[in-house]
Amino acid sequence: MSEAVRIQTIDGGVTAAKGFEAASAAAGIKYQGRDDMALIYSETPCRAAGTFTTNVVKAAPVKWDQKIVAESPYVQAVVVNSGIANACTGAEGYGYCEETAEEAARVLGVPENAVLVASTGVIGMQLPMDRLKKGISLLREAKGAGAEKGTAAAKAIMTTDTVHKEIAVQVELGGRIVTIGGMCKGSGMIHPNMCTMLAFVTTDAAISRELLQRAVSADVKDTFNMISVDGDTSTNDTLLVLANGLAGNPEITEEDEDYRAFAKALSEVNTCLAKKMAGDGEGATALFEVKIIGAKTKEQAVTLSKSVVTSSLVKAAIYGHDANWGRILCAMGYSGAQFDPEKVDLFFESAAGRIQIIENGVAVDYSEEEATRILSEPEVTAIADVKLGTESATAWGCDLTYDYVKINADYRS
Amino acid sequence: MSEAVRIQTIDGGVTAAKGFEAASAAAGIKYQGRDDMALIYSETPCRAAGTFTTNVVKAAPVKWDQKIVAESPYVQAVVVNSGIANACTGAEGYGYCEETAEEAARVLGVPENAVLVASTGVIGMQLPMDRLKKGISLLREAKGAGAEKGTAAAKAIMTTDTVHKEIAVQVELGGRIVTIGGMCKGSGMIHPNMCTMLAFVTTDAAISRELLQRAVSADVKDTFNMISVDGDTSTNDTLLVLANGLAGNPEITEEDEDYRAFAKALSEVNTCLAKKMAGDGEGATALFEVKIIGAKTKEQAVTLSKSVVTSSLVKAAIYGHDANWGRILCAMGYSGAQFDPEKVDLFFESAAGRIQIIENGVAVDYSEEEATRILSEPEVTAIADVKLGTESATAWGCDLTYDYVKINADYRS
Repeated sequence: MSEAVRIQTIDGGVTAAKGFEAASAAAGIKYQGRDDMALIYSETPCRAAGTFTTNVVKAAPVKWDQKIVAESPYVQAVVVNSGIANACTGAEGYGYCEETAEEAARVLGVPENAVLVASTGVIGMQLPMDRLKKGISLLREAKGAGAEKGTAAAKAIMTTDTVHKEIAVQVELGGRIVTIGGMCKGSGMIHPNMCTMLAFVTTDAAISRELLQRAVSADVKDTFNMISVDGDTSTNDTLLVLANGLAGNPEITEEDEDYRAFAKALSEVNTCLAKKMAGDGEGATALFEVKIIGAKTKEQAVTLSKSVVTSSLVKAAIYGHDANWGRILCAMGYSGAQFDPEKVDLFFESAAGRIQIIENGVAVDYSEEEATRILSEPEVTAIADVKLGTESATAWGCDLTYDYVKINADYRS
Repeated sequence: MSEAVRIQTIDGGVTAAKGFEAASAAAGIKYQGRDDMALIYSETPCRAAGTFTTNVVKAAPVKWDQKIVAESPYVQAVVVNSGIANACTGAEGYGYCEETAEEAARVLGVPENAVLVASTGVIGMQLPMDRLKKGISLLREAKGAGAEKGTAAAKAIMTTDTVHKEIAVQVELGGRIVTIGGMCKGSGMIHPNMCTMLAFVTTDAAISRELLQRAVSADVKDTFNMISVDGDTSTNDTLLVLANGLAGNPEITEEDEDYRAFAKALSEVNTCLAKKMAGDGEGATALFEVKIIGAKTKEQAVTLSKSVVTSSLVKAAIYGHDANWGRILCAMGYSGAQFDPEKVDLFFESAAGRIQIIENGVAVDYSEEEATRILSEPEVTAIADVKLGTESATAWGCDLTYDYVKINADYRS
């Protein structure tokens, strides 16, 4: 069934769906000479869904958003700043979230509890509220529709990111074209006491709040939670999805064909954003994909793939374009998942070709030169078949480079 | 009670205890122009205890040693080679362990099941048995008592280690001086498809096999298993402890005062060896110690301390001498242990002094210069008080440096 769904990628990001506007502004919160605040705004009220960091240490905006997503009848705006994460800031920091929402509500003419907030940057510093409030006024003046506004917002939320990250797709639901667009920031890893993966997805789909949250919660397991580079562990990790219903499709209220089509399109957006983050990992020169196939259970496949993609030794080998299969088997071995090492087949794959390295746990007679050629591409995949069943999982990460150490050893500045 | 135990550090390593001899030899197994085989030999039969990697992928010598430690009435020799790990080598590799034991047994005049074997080096290559057998003959010729022989053995088992690692202590048990000595290799992390932490401890204590194993199994939880740098996850990790009883102390057969004194001395040896490995982590410039105090349970303290000491971001900050407390709180937060971030106090400590950074989860007004001075020492400690109880744990690791990436990105050679 879901094979029949046609999903088309289009230009744009958070402003691609009907009724969504965006803006960016230079508020001078910490960075100078660049935009550091962004706004996402919907002409009409939205259903909101979110997933948040599981870290015991949660930043103030995470606490605010969790409350709004759970309790508010609808949401209409998201205010984001980069530079300061508003994490480990106590009651004072939480108060600033309230103040931000209050100010944005006043300026935009929406209820205070329709405003979500997000922050990324240094841990432990308080937000300069005077500058942030001025930034909100600038955002209101700058806000508008169109791809350009979405891109400006995607750039304003960057910290150590080297590229801005956005994507939009369209899918037909009940005879109407539904658009889903998104943007995110984060190199997966946390910057020198900077925090966070932030992702924002907007859609004009009509979908009940319950099913929106269900689709989002189900999908992150295969997308954002499968990025290796500590993406799931910062104090600020946030994914927010807003749906304003302006596409005019029959409202999705149960797990029917339309729900599955919407979920598939959402997954395409999330997968794309997640891979962009992994490939832009701090100091990274390559996107590293790990597929476990033939697993007995999905959980086993997830455990094995995440163990490989997070191994420093495997990541360093990818940087060196080295087909170091012993490290991959080793990382699978200590993952906690049970399997028979003497059944494992291992392959490397990239735009330059595909090569088998191990058959039944023992090295085949492969060419190291050929393997190195395949591993020298900017996107490389390791595929391990554990031959225990039919489940699979894919995790994404990046290589470990000198620059990663350099970026993260530098003094905070 | 255990406060009263006097443990004295003495010169030497595996040959410090009565009746133990050692040897090294250049067998040319993979390295050229250096010793790459070592022998530990006891004049008289020994009780043996061991702990081994929990990796699903176990090297052949691990499987052999597990069998010998569990089934043999006694042990008298350990044959070690560096250069090739004999891991992922299938039935052929296991056969070579048997052949090694057989040959050593013949040459040394001991039963085959009294010979333990250990290997460290490249995964996936088979041992050149002709050269290894010649090496065993060379070891027999070279074997002898004295500190020099022990040191030579400690050097022969090195791979990426930059220094050899040995220690010996003495303690009085039942009116007799008992000596415990040990050596180990491993930078904690695995070398470019090299494997392994190997540790060997010899003692002339008289102790029953059951209590020897009990003391060893209990102690590794606080020592070798508390090294961060993947020390517990390679395919070859092995700790072997041999006790020949020649000290003449009344045999330890129950958990009495002598047992506790022995365990304390053993712990001193293991702690020293474990710290030496952590501090010699690949590319490391500093030994990094993490103490969690005030924990509700031991398990909580262990989980928190290991999470901090293994965090790439924390390790990179230590390399940069940066008091990046946000990363430490963050690593505690994603560890899986529950605690209240707003209760945490955090301190840094080294030979240069001690400084408080956080009080009740919020930064105190500390001097960054002072903190950097303290963090610029070759051994630095982070102490986090979670104020939930009286349990504590200490983990050891090292900083993350350019050289770590360099060593591990290089092609296998």
